[in-house]
Amino acid sequence: LITKEIQTVTLIPGDGIGPEISTAVMKIFEAAKAPIQWEERNVTAIKGPGGRWMIPPEAKESMNKNKIGLKGPLKTPIAAGHPSMNLLLRKTFDLYANVRPCVSIEGYKTPYTDVDLVTIRENTEGEYSGIEHLIVDGVVQSIKLITEEASRRIAEYAFEYARNNQRTSVTAVHKANIMRMSDGLFLRKCREVAENYKDVKFTEMYLDTVCLNMVQDPSHFDVLVMPNLYGDILSDLCAGLIGGLGVTPSGNIGANGVAIFESVHGTAPDIAGKDLANPTALLLSAVMMLRHMGLHGYAKKIETACFDTIRDEKVLTKDLGGNAKCSEFTADICRRVQDMD
Amino acid sequence: LITKEIQTVTLIPGDGIGPEISTAVMKIFEAAKAPIQWEERNVTAIKGPGGRWMIPPEAKESMNKNKIGLKGPLKTPIAAGHPSMNLLLRKTFDLYANVRPCVSIEGYKTPYTDVDLVTIRENTEGEYSGIEHLIVDGVVQSIKLITEEASRRIAEYAFEYARNNQRTSVTAVHKANIMRMSDGLFLRKCREVAENYKDVKFTEMYLDTVCLNMVQDPSHFDVLVMPNLYGDILSDLCAGLIGGLGVTPSGNIGANGVAIFESVHGTAPDIAGKDLANPTALLLSAVMMLRHMGLHGYAKKIETACFDTIRDEKVLTKDLGGNAKCSEFTADICRRVQDMD
Ligand SMILES: CC(C)[C@H](C(=O)O)[C@@H](O)C(=O)O
Ligand SMILES: CC(C)[C@H](C(=O)O)[C@@H](O)C(=O)O
Repeated sequence: LITKEIQTVTLIPGDGIGPEISTAVMKIFEAAKAPIQWEERNVTAIKGPGGRWMIPPEAKESMNKNKIGLKGPLKTPIAAGHPSMNLLLRKTFDLYANVRPCVSIEGYKTPYTDVDLVTIRENTEGEYSGIEHLIVDGVVQSIKLITEEASRRIAEYAFEYARNNQRTSVTAVHKANIMRMSDGLFLRKCREVAENYKDVKFTEMYLDTVCLNMVQDPSHFDVLVMPNLYGDILSDLCAGLIGGLGVTPSGNIGANGVAIFESVHGTAPDIAGKDLANPTALLLSAVMMLRHMGLHGYAKKIETACFDTIRDEKVLTKDLGGNAKCSEFTADICRRVQDMD
Repeated sequence: LITKEIQTVTLIPGDGIGPEISTAVMKIFEAAKAPIQWEERNVTAIKGPGGRWMIPPEAKESMNKNKIGLKGPLKTPIAAGHPSMNLLLRKTFDLYANVRPCVSIEGYKTPYTDVDLVTIRENTEGEYSGIEHLIVDGVVQSIKLITEEASRRIAEYAFEYARNNQRTSVTAVHKANIMRMSDGLFLRKCREVAENYKDVKFTEMYLDTVCLNMVQDPSHFDVLVMPNLYGDILSDLCAGLIGGLGVTPSGNIGANGVAIFESVHGTAPDIAGKDLANPTALLLSAVMMLRHMGLHGYAKKIETACFDTIRDEKVLTKDLGGNAKCSEFTADICRRVQDMD
């Protein structure tokens, strides 16, 4: 038995069902003896000097120290001008790549059985620049900002990802026929970066065509890289193909190993605290996190146990078609993890 | 027998397979004795005074006179700065609403059987403004322009459409959580207009959520209204659900009855001239045209014949899963149309 050094991860349980599914993940990690220690932090936006919304300092310090975070769903308060906490986190830690692997889950029926792709979304600019103006009464403009640097950075991330994850192709998704300069710049950077990755096939496709082909036959897609808004759309579309946000993991990756892994579903206030939530999305995000940390053995073990429980169809939460409680679903995964030893 | 006044329609056969599928439509209209007379016009972009690309004057005059057009696919030449001919047509005639009914076709298998929705896309502004700037080296901005007037106009079109087509709900699709001012303005106009259509249910949804829900269960959707780019994406996604662009009709509607109906698939140069093309999308667009002109009986007859041929599965073009020629498929529809008399 190799004794691994224990690493500390910032855990942001989040709102609504967040605490329950976080507890589920912690239990499963414990059962798997994953060498992870959690540092729990609350993330509620607070107003900093100058009235700017910011992440609470204790959460920020924890992330700065640990570099890796796992996060449940956060509610966005409806105060005027209040930013999405998810966006604020991405911004605060410059998490420039949003990565969502979408893989069909055996035993969980959807119209598609052979999805195995990854969407890689530029996470910092584009349509999410936040720059908008009222030109004259009744005329508004929003600015989509595309930079050479961010485009190259995300393209490089996508190709590195493909190479390191035994994926064979990267498709740049764009509308450069319409936004010739902005998407044109994005596309040009993808092409340039592709030159350095001759081992990875590179293709380019229009966003509308990708959407059309995706619902007709998703099996042709592998790694997809795209500007912010297109990624927002495509990642949700692809999540839909495999069963929705309840089973889809997500990672936000920054420079120097900084990363926050998160379930991207909502806080589900209607079932919060009732032991009914499905922890799969957060658990699979935690599995992505383990891989990011190089802990592949633990990742595989937990992932296998989770998929075995789902395939078995005996102990499933309601949204997965069963009537088990969150704690029962969790216990079933824990048992499988322990049986693997 | 009521003798209808014969109306003239501008026919733009288009490039590639355009002429073949146009011929198919003309034959079927003849078999149905539809009171339509065609005025064929070629549309190849020409350079006008000042070097601006424009529609050839003969085509423009014909459209101005007839108000109604039917159009096959047009290729976009790869000359520098050459606009998409489709976009140029929409712009030239201020065709502000792109309307695409997506209805599952019996006998044509896709993973979905109960799609019955209509996407209504703002066709003149938004992300298609064409305004882009290089701010500094490596930093580009594209401007998304949303106006009160265009937003109100498309919202009104959507609600009128719903009311006149026995549809019960209109959903505004937006990202006003991110583009608060531009999508916010669009959404506000939809809300205002909804006040005047109390008989039609109004809902609002995020674009990403729509994409996710759409691939999970499209049956919940009815009329969807949205800014330009979102419409580009969603209309293709929905076309994918029912079998692709080869079977999906489209109409571009302007003020005062002006409209161009078009198949939105490509020119398919590889099979052009080989009598292999599928005329369904253009035919169903022509059926939309008949309805737009108030010729509901003819529309119903032709549509029924087309769907009967597809359901029958005996005479299908290759893309529909058969091995009939375009002319054979067309003849089968003609026969059914004549049998209905
Ligand atoms: C919460 C929301 C602001 C966010 C987005 O639009 O990016 C979400 O949809 C996502 O994909 O993470
Ligand atoms: C041809 C292209 C410019 C066009 C668009 O982007 O709008 C097409 O995709 C469409 O949907 O009609």
